[in-house]
Amino acid sequence: MKNAKVRLYVDQPLGQEQTIPLNREQVHYLFAVMRLGLGDVVLLFNGRDGEWRSTVVEAKKRYGVLICEQQTQTLQMPPDLWFLFAPIKKARTDFIVEKAAEMGVARIVPVQTEYTNSERIRQDRLQVHAIEAAEQCGGTFVPEVAPLQRLDRILANWPDGRKLMFCDEAEAGSALTLAMSSVNCWAILIGPEGGFSSLERERLRSLPFVHVVSLGPRILRADTAAVAALAIWQQALGDWN
Amino acid sequence: MKNAKVRLYVDQPLGQEQTIPLNREQVHYLFAVMRLGLGDVVLLFNGRDGEWRSTVVEAKKRYGVLICEQQTQTLQMPPDLWFLFAPIKKARTDFIVEKAAEMGVARIVPVQTEYTNSERIRQDRLQVHAIEAAEQCGGTFVPEVAPLQRLDRILANWPDGRKLMFCDEAEAGSALTLAMSSVNCWAILIGPEGGFSSLERERLRSLPFVHVVSLGPRILRADTAAVAALAIWQQALGDWN
Repeated sequence: MKNAKVRLYVDQPLGQEQTIPLNREQVHYLFAVMRLGLGDVVLLFNGRDGEWRSTVVEAKKRYGVLICEQQTQTLQMPPDLWFLFAPIKKARTDFIVEKAAEMGVARIVPVQTEYTNSERIRQDRLQVHAIEAAEQCGGTFVPEVAPLQRLDRILANWPDGRKLMFCDEAEAGSALTLAMSSVNCWAILIGPEGGFSSLERERLRSLPFVHVVSLGPRILRADTAAVAALAIWQQALGDWN
Repeated sequence: MKNAKVRLYVDQPLGQEQTIPLNREQVHYLFAVMRLGLGDVVLLFNGRDGEWRSTVVEAKKRYGVLICEQQTQTLQMPPDLWFLFAPIKKARTDFIVEKAAEMGVARIVPVQTEYTNSERIRQDRLQVHAIEAAEQCGGTFVPEVAPLQRLDRILANWPDGRKLMFCDEAEAGSALTLAMSSVNCWAILIGPEGGFSSLERERLRSLPFVHVVSLGPRILRADTAAVAALAIWQQALGDWN
């Protein structure tokens, strides 16, 4: 199918015969970068209505319209997994958000720990990375990127019934077991490059909803640890089986 | 301990009282970039003799010498795991090599598949990435980066007794089980961005030493798949427990 591989995230609702007016950025991407024209196919998703095959019905220099023709995928929700991570250097933070979206999480939460260097993040930019990851990877769901929050406050207000997998570099943990799959709501916490403070580690290890796992005998960079932790969780308790 | 975090890979043998003359690049890194001087500490490893604490005993502009004082780590070998991957775009290929070294593999083998774009790789540059990953991550072993080889030839000359974990995007696989830990020699194969050809997939699935695993319902980029596959293997059969 000609150009069927172009996927685009849009804000609008998607449905049979729905017309989608494009903004300037989308016009530039589809007609200038991807060189599409009248009659070409674009796959659309908005994170809510699955994936729709659409056709270009207007392709002007600064204006364009698509029309939805057929649903090609229903909405595939990831498991109810939150991904908590401490922002690090820009490129590796972008990477972590991309990977979390690819690996399938419901929500991405940047957290400020004692050893987190960055005091602020560009939430909007990280959200764009999550969208791009979904565009690339055929996803129909886009995880929300939450504002930066302090780890101690998150832990103090932890929601009932949600387990937290804490990847502790410094000490051994125990494997996730099938028995834990009775809990449906989980979160994963990945530390900053310098690890957690001993106060943070003590607190985490003492909390009843925390399950400690080990990511092996080698020290992993934060971005590696992120993907590794997600893989282990998805394999044991998520939708990889 | 002052500057104890500077780690350096060297070619020379390491042992008690061993002197290590530095090359120009190492002199520049230690004295100009890291601003070390006489008496400062550098942790050395060469992939064979563990990690040694050394002291700077000469620090000239173009010349420097370290002396080994004490072994700080014995050599920690990773599991006997080969990591086979199809090279992709430069930055992501570098990344895959970095991640494989971090996650703990014995050997990194770039393979040419039917859908591999790059016909050649810079083996020396990739080897440097593996060394840098070990420097960063406190490793004492550096996996060798092999020359680019054709997948069909590797499979035709597959060594006796080594299992191959094939991560197939297109179809379901089965989990690694503890029973498989009776086999000590393994390899992991990660495909290029475009996946494997149907001929390659058929052949792989028919080989007696191949075990097919699934990396979930979402499409993963090659670099994500690399870390995810390594995590699953290390957790089930490697040294993460």
